[in-house]
Amino acid sequence: MKRFTVRFEPEGKKLSAVDASTILEVAKGGGIGIRSECGGKGKCGKCRVIIANQLHLSEISEAEKEHLTPEEISKGYRLACMVSIRRDLTVVIPSESRLSVRRIQIQGMEQPVKLDPNIRKINLVLEKPTVQNPVADDLNILTHLEKVYGLRGLEWEYELIKNLPDTIREGNWNITVTLLNDHKVIDLEPGDTTSRNFGFAVDIGTSKIVGYLVNLNSGEVVGLGSLENPQIAFGEDILSRISYAEESPEKRRRLQTLAIEGINKIVQTACGESGIKQSEIYELTVVGNTAMLSLFLGIQTKYLHLAPYVPGVKGPVVVKTQELGINANPRASVYALPNIAGYVGADAVGDVLATNIHEMDEMCLLVDVGTNGEVFVGNREDIVSCSCAAGPAFEGVHIQHGMKAVSGAIERIRIDPKTFEVKYATIDGVKPVGICGSGVIDAVAEMFKCGIISERGKFNDVDTVRMIRVEGKPEFVIAWKEETAIEKNITVSLKDIEEVQLAKAAIHTGCAILMEKKAVTEEDIDRVFIAGAFGNYIDPESAKFLGLIPDVPTEKITFAGNTALAGAKMALLSREVRKTAQKLSRWIRYVELMAEPNFQREFVKSTLIPYKHLERYPSVKKYLENHS
Amino acid sequence: MKRFTVRFEPEGKKLSAVDASTILEVAKGGGIGIRSECGGKGKCGKCRVIIANQLHLSEISEAEKEHLTPEEISKGYRLACMVSIRRDLTVVIPSESRLSVRRIQIQGMEQPVKLDPNIRKINLVLEKPTVQNPVADDLNILTHLEKVYGLRGLEWEYELIKNLPDTIREGNWNITVTLLNDHKVIDLEPGDTTSRNFGFAVDIGTSKIVGYLVNLNSGEVVGLGSLENPQIAFGEDILSRISYAEESPEKRRRLQTLAIEGINKIVQTACGESGIKQSEIYELTVVGNTAMLSLFLGIQTKYLHLAPYVPGVKGPVVVKTQELGINANPRASVYALPNIAGYVGADAVGDVLATNIHEMDEMCLLVDVGTNGEVFVGNREDIVSCSCAAGPAFEGVHIQHGMKAVSGAIERIRIDPKTFEVKYATIDGVKPVGICGSGVIDAVAEMFKCGIISERGKFNDVDTVRMIRVEGKPEFVIAWKEETAIEKNITVSLKDIEEVQLAKAAIHTGCAILMEKKAVTEEDIDRVFIAGAFGNYIDPESAKFLGLIPDVPTEKITFAGNTALAGAKMALLSREVRKTAQKLSRWIRYVELMAEPNFQREFVKSTLIPYKHLERYPSVKKYLENHS
Repeated sequence: MKRFTVRFEPEGKKLSAVDASTILEVAKGGGIGIRSECGGKGKCGKCRVIIANQLHLSEISEAEKEHLTPEEISKGYRLACMVSIRRDLTVVIPSESRLSVRRIQIQGMEQPVKLDPNIRKINLVLEKPTVQNPVADDLNILTHLEKVYGLRGLEWEYELIKNLPDTIREGNWNITVTLLNDHKVIDLEPGDTTSRNFGFAVDIGTSKIVGYLVNLNSGEVVGLGSLENPQIAFGEDILSRISYAEESPEKRRRLQTLAIEGINKIVQTACGESGIKQSEIYELTVVGNTAMLSLFLGIQTKYLHLAPYVPGVKGPVVVKTQELGINANPRASVYALPNIAGYVGADAVGDVLATNIHEMDEMCLLVDVGTNGEVFVGNREDIVSCSCAAGPAFEGVHIQHGMKAVSGAIERIRIDPKTFEVKYATIDGVKPVGICGSGVIDAVAEMFKCGIISERGKFNDVDTVRMIRVEGKPEFVIAWKEETAIEKNITVSLKDIEEVQLAKAAIHTGCAILMEKKAVTEEDIDRVFIAGAFGNYIDPESAKFLGLIPDVPTEKITFAGNTALAGAKMALLSREVRKTAQKLSRWIRYVELMAEPNFQREFVKSTLIPYKHLERYPSVKKYLENHS
Repeated sequence: MKRFTVRFEPEGKKLSAVDASTILEVAKGGGIGIRSECGGKGKCGKCRVIIANQLHLSEISEAEKEHLTPEEISKGYRLACMVSIRRDLTVVIPSESRLSVRRIQIQGMEQPVKLDPNIRKINLVLEKPTVQNPVADDLNILTHLEKVYGLRGLEWEYELIKNLPDTIREGNWNITVTLLNDHKVIDLEPGDTTSRNFGFAVDIGTSKIVGYLVNLNSGEVVGLGSLENPQIAFGEDILSRISYAEESPEKRRRLQTLAIEGINKIVQTACGESGIKQSEIYELTVVGNTAMLSLFLGIQTKYLHLAPYVPGVKGPVVVKTQELGINANPRASVYALPNIAGYVGADAVGDVLATNIHEMDEMCLLVDVGTNGEVFVGNREDIVSCSCAAGPAFEGVHIQHGMKAVSGAIERIRIDPKTFEVKYATIDGVKPVGICGSGVIDAVAEMFKCGIISERGKFNDVDTVRMIRVEGKPEFVIAWKEETAIEKNITVSLKDIEEVQLAKAAIHTGCAILMEKKAVTEEDIDRVFIAGAFGNYIDPESAKFLGLIPDVPTEKITFAGNTALAGAKMALLSREVRKTAQKLSRWIRYVELMAEPNFQREFVKSTLIPYKHLERYPSVKKYLENHS
């Protein structure tokens, strides 16, 4: 069978395509989100893509003529579901056809689970009552469920029973019941609706809210949604938000409402793209760090930043979507996974669930890189955890030319150690606009590698035109004005380097102190998991050179992606996973870094690149020796 | 010790009083409801009573001077809590000092239960978290409850957890949790509030709504409330109300709202009189016939009067008070007891629970006399039940001079068999206004006894001035115009007699058919229980003479009062009783009278006074033989 390569822009992602498959099929198979309300039947006209080179393409179909103007067709617009692939080609997905914001890592590593969701739909064909056997309608259902499914002691959601007699007759004694935890009847529909059974998993990050729409019968992800956390208007870090919430119950309520509205938006997006009704969503599982989860649930967060920093509510918390105002089935509920501590939340429980480090024999280091980072060291015997306030530098914030990982961001940088010439790559391959997180890490690591900066992050006296002075202060030019889309030099300043040092030091300190607690060294670490929304785009060599993570062989490092969300999805699909989550939330030990006597000393050591003691970074040391 | 007699008006109830006891104490001890928010301390001024004869009374106290105007004092107003009794006296309770509507039988026979309510309050003194042990606030509570009380797997009512951290600190780590069924935390209060733990038991009758406010720690009734069912504006019988509800969801909702408002009123009354806050009520148990309970819960009742007459919901139904709009603790819930069949409801389950016939060896007949009557025959081995549409004749409705059992109603009638002279007694001993249920039963029974009417309910040709003609139709005068407060003759017409015959026939047919089902005769019946709101006021001899109940020796008859409400109270105090209620609702057999082949024939026989076959009424037969 012939195979072709399709390059999707602006991601630049290349996927292999079987002869005659459609662009939509290939995109879906490769995790590229293209809208398709009709499921690929040429009816909705949403899957518009641009193919510049129309050579050897399948003919314009009737559906395309209906949905595209002649002008659009002349510009290369096609419907992705109608174009059969018969050669290598490049497809541009315009923003209106996109499923989700680009370059937010939604998917993550996850463990297979035995499908056992909290929600179960059962179709019943009841016997009609007679004068001889005038069985009550509710008892008719309960008796059937007990006899055939062994379900006893079921309770009813009150709203359902009001029209129960009508519903039963509307379905002519053929009905579908929806059960919560084999315990409560939460929906009753005429006819057989067992195939319409969906759930939603959400990760409320400090910066982003991301979610999966999941088919609860199959475990399959059928839709995605992501959004910048709307609370960001009230501070980009946790502390400023909980300080705001503390000012009054109204302000606390305001932040809660923003989180809820954010979730409603991603639910809407995911439902819209997949043709699933919001009323077919029966449960949501939610993770987030303790503060984000508390704000979402409207819980008092005041004591989170007063010693001894206890979380008000460890959880798990179960609440009806209606009580929160989340758009789903009116009797759906939210299961918020439990937290570990004040600053190690349910998202961290998700990280552990998805990476499975709690069942491994190998000694693991798990780092979730985010505005608030979490670090774990351990294995099945014992796990210690801590939280690191890295701040948003790795998301391009507080960096002079920093930017989010969108089109035009420099995401990869290489500097020639002899000529100091810079090579870079931008997202979408367009003219650069700024530098995103992975580019920032690359920049500082490469500058150190080439001797442009010292281990203290100060500029060395190197001879290159790229060292310039702006308002008297030295900066290193990554992209010259003429090359950029902003008609300004894109540079790295001393302050930028310092921001990166502080952020990486926060995470490294967590790693170092936890390793000390477990009495392990870099050599004892068998596996390193880097989780987090943008983790996948980091160059592991740069991360080591910078000293963001300990110096372990690259083959031991796994980029795990958004494991927090993956954990939430696992909990959505398995009641057993929820039990495990609850155990983990109590079992994983928490280390309060601020209370550690050597925290300050370790932090200062960690601000050096890669670290105060070079012997703990043998691969860096070796490189420097070879290249000095 | 000296004892005095206190007569309370307008009830006319006489109570014995120990020397120097207060009027309030005596009233309370005798079940006479007088308001007293302060509990008898002279502080609230609510227990105002009138004592016409001020001779030899204790002096006017300071408290009385504060709460009563000089003019009121001159009229004989006193505070019941301040007056010591030192002689026989008559006390008038003005309506503003009344606890409850007069002459509605609230109390009923009941079985002692082992106190095990669904609600439990526990006071906890928690350990404060430290940096070394930064235990989360929720876990702090749960761990304590698990360690000390063995309570595991507790869930939280969502609204509580929002301010859990504040509540805990407000109480300085001393808090009280309220648990629902040892399963869910529904309240959290600072300090020790364990003594404030109340529930409410309600019987929603077709005519009246009555309720008990109960201390859940002691089982003691601390307040009462009763009210005419406000739904009565939409029909005095069940059928007209469910027909109305059927017309539109809005009309169904309207009847539901009326029931809820009615309950709110009696809750308010009971709380007001006892100084208990509505927020201290954590659970309500509710009984009623199937239709009333369904209307209260907003359940579709359409199919109740379509064959095969199945109840939509047998129950039990659990629903939060907030979902219904009932004023109680915001996280309180309602437990509606289960029904037996479409026309034998949870009130009938209450009757059985309170009389305990399901545990007796003796063969029992239980009749709950009401607008909708229920009959049971059986014992521990088996019970059959049926429903009888008696209509409201026994409540004075559809009777020309009929009236409710309020002041001025003729409640007792005796007719001299020789002179046909009539002696009667009215409620409060005032001039008669009309005839209430027990008077109506007496009237027809006595007229038959004296030969004024035949067994068919037709007037015989008797020679008395009391036989008069009104618009050409014969009527029998009970009270002459001059004696009455309405300046009209109070009479009994042919139509009145017919109404009574139909009502008594309905109940008697139920008794007869169920006895036939159980293959028992009057001689096999060991015990008869007459339950119902006005049951206690019926003269058992008259009831037998009329043929309302089978002819059994009077000593076998127990007037059980409002057993429906008593059953609801038992369920409020014991989870075991709820289990029994659920078993009974499925175990008690239901006989659909309309589907019985001999129903019509039996009904016709039962319209005769006392019955078609006089040999089944040997005591009546004997009387007639002796007096003919």
